[in-house]
Amino acid sequence: MKTGTLWIIPTPLGNLGDFSKRTLETLKNLTVVAAEDTRECRKIYSHFEMPTPHLIRCDEACERKAAEQIIRSLEEGTDVGFITDAGTPSVSDPGWRLVDSITKAGFLAIPLTGPSAVTTALSVCHFPTTPFMFQGFLDRKEGRRKKEMLA
Amino acid sequence: MKTGTLWIIPTPLGNLGDFSKRTLETLKNLTVVAAEDTRECRKIYSHFEMPTPHLIRCDEACERKAAEQIIRSLEEGTDVGFITDAGTPSVSDPGWRLVDSITKAGFLAIPLTGPSAVTTALSVCHFPTTPFMFQGFLDRKEGRRKKEMLA
Repeated sequence: MKTGTLWIIPTPLGNLGDFSKRTLETLKNLTVVAAEDTRECRKIYSHFEMPTPHLIRCDEACERKAAEQIIRSLEEGTDVGFITDAGTPSVSDPGWRLVDSITKAGFLAIPLTGPSAVTTALSVCHFPTTPFMFQGFLDRKEGRRKKEMLA
Repeated sequence: MKTGTLWIIPTPLGNLGDFSKRTLETLKNLTVVAAEDTRECRKIYSHFEMPTPHLIRCDEACERKAAEQIIRSLEEGTDVGFITDAGTPSVSDPGWRLVDSITKAGFLAIPLTGPSAVTTALSVCHFPTTPFMFQGFLDRKEGRRKKEMLA
């Protein structure tokens, strides 16, 4: 029976008061959560005094491998959550490889809505923001970064 | 004394459980709120059993005019909130004209983070999502819409 669902869960950008009621309830009900950084995930559970579920490390380097473990949980009918360090998964963060793996295996990924740095920044622009292009993180090296900004 | 602040406030896309604690507290503390649709705003206050503050209609057609009224409140030292129908202001929604008007008048716009359709949709893509281009609403007329999609 394939019944488990993967919940894609945004987390606050710095202020834990930015969690929605629905997100906190989802986190509370999950028994398995995959996280880009399991220590950050532990801090969230501890802050809200919720028992920490079984955590699976799922950063960019081990996303496909973590997906195998996550698929086993989904196959058993267990829902799994996925959170990144801050903000919305897949937007300048890991996520799409995991979604690709689990959908190919026949499971559903359902997103919750919440904190995102890009739309928050856009909301205080004093010029028209649509259409816009999101480039993601710029290169760490100064030369390449300058090139990207001039492109 | 110029002390009032304009709070740019995202609202849920459909599920009122997506409000964050911080956003609800902000809405509760505000005595003046500008809204794209005041009826929708009233529904939110009524749902959470909070007394409705003084509402100012601020849709795309009357944004600059509403800004004058909002600036008067800010000048009096009163904080003002701004919400659109659903999601994050300025992202395919009114907002930038208001932010432009109030910042030119010397006031600060502070954004809260929260629901946004664009980042939520991106988070369940099964391909790399960065960089991405956000085009906003497509034209209502079929011919123009087709042209936009082929561009």
